[in-house]
Amino acid sequence: MTQNLDVCLTPALIPLYNVEDYIVVVIDIFRATSSICYGIENGAEAIIPVSEVEACAAYREKGFDHLLAAERNGEVVAGFDFGNSPFSYTKEKVSGKTVVLTTTNGTHALHLSRKAKKIVIGSFLNLTSLCNWLKTQNDSVLLVCAGWKNNFNLEDTLFAGAVVEQLKESGYTLDDPAMAANDLFQIGKNDISQYLSKTSHGERLKKLGIEKDIAFCLQVDITTAIPILDGEKLVKLV
Amino acid sequence: MTQNLDVCLTPALIPLYNVEDYIVVVIDIFRATSSICYGIENGAEAIIPVSEVEACAAYREKGFDHLLAAERNGEVVAGFDFGNSPFSYTKEKVSGKTVVLTTTNGTHALHLSRKAKKIVIGSFLNLTSLCNWLKTQNDSVLLVCAGWKNNFNLEDTLFAGAVVEQLKESGYTLDDPAMAANDLFQIGKNDISQYLSKTSHGERLKKLGIEKDIAFCLQVDITTAIPILDGEKLVKLV
Repeated sequence: MTQNLDVCLTPALIPLYNVEDYIVVVIDIFRATSSICYGIENGAEAIIPVSEVEACAAYREKGFDHLLAAERNGEVVAGFDFGNSPFSYTKEKVSGKTVVLTTTNGTHALHLSRKAKKIVIGSFLNLTSLCNWLKTQNDSVLLVCAGWKNNFNLEDTLFAGAVVEQLKESGYTLDDPAMAANDLFQIGKNDISQYLSKTSHGERLKKLGIEKDIAFCLQVDITTAIPILDGEKLVKLV
Repeated sequence: MTQNLDVCLTPALIPLYNVEDYIVVVIDIFRATSSICYGIENGAEAIIPVSEVEACAAYREKGFDHLLAAERNGEVVAGFDFGNSPFSYTKEKVSGKTVVLTTTNGTHALHLSRKAKKIVIGSFLNLTSLCNWLKTQNDSVLLVCAGWKNNFNLEDTLFAGAVVEQLKESGYTLDDPAMAANDLFQIGKNDISQYLSKTSHGERLKKLGIEKDIAFCLQVDITTAIPILDGEKLVKLV
């Protein structure tokens, strides 16, 4: 077996990988990929990730009956239905709907990974379901951390380490970032919330008054749906 | 005090920092910055880092009486005096001489950091001396890991974590990569050699038959000289 399990610590490093050789898992724990997992679990027909607020707004102008979610720097952009708080992705709000989503970091990572064999979405919410599915694939896996403004962040890396933890006994070859991510997970796993409270991004999100969102995004295995990119849309893997 | 202690995990991420706000420490543990520290300690008048083998060769054509050190992918380039094994930087070989050095990763990081307030060279060899000097400076510090082919590697990050360990009680604000590097150092510090033996680069270097070099580069505090960039040359900080 010569499958690799690699971790790309920031979107800026994606060009260093031949993404076409991998199944890519995009990770943006606070909060885009957590909300996407929750929304798809709750019956959203599709979630369309876009890079720019303007591209999101364009869906309204085109007359589509989509929910429009736009966030920049952790806040909902004025005039949009909502941002990427997971509490906006409940069954009541998204079931049967298509959501157009733009976020600071997550969408960026998704777009840079376009050439991958498959692109799926990971978060603590669907951790074990995701890992079990990855184990059934005969492909190398690249865990892409969305990070913060193209740089490393602890929460996405810690989650990558949690995935490595579940896959590492399955014969993959790990690269250095995968080893490091898994070591960080060993340090943080007993109290992830406490571990992450020291991070810059945690501080930033606290200032935005979204501690509830943070706690929500750190819940492990409360969903099983795996969002997968199909053309331009994220849909439920079946 | 508002000094930052930040870690740039790979040269690819240097553009994310305003390097002109920092004292930059360039780190390429296996083996460039270890050898530079050892060479400057042993009385080399200067070490001139260059990016390209051709630029290194040009010094011979210009008629300079310099030692020429050229390495690519861990091996000495044919026709050059030596590469970057620390054992080539003994007192007998380099005392009073100028060495022109090109390496795979270290020089790359140095050149990308040019605009920094000061650029100094770090390795386990001069760890405490370097940290003690940094503490006397009223400046933010950016630890730049040379990495491997623009990506993250464990040995450079672990060393960055060792520097963080000595500075973190001095009031700096740490970024996420600095926290992660320090956590990794906590895991590896009791047996750095054992910890690093699992890494991809360690494997690569073992194949090149340079285990002796690796062991040498992991010696802590056997030198006190701090190489600093002065124009185009690395010289001893006085």
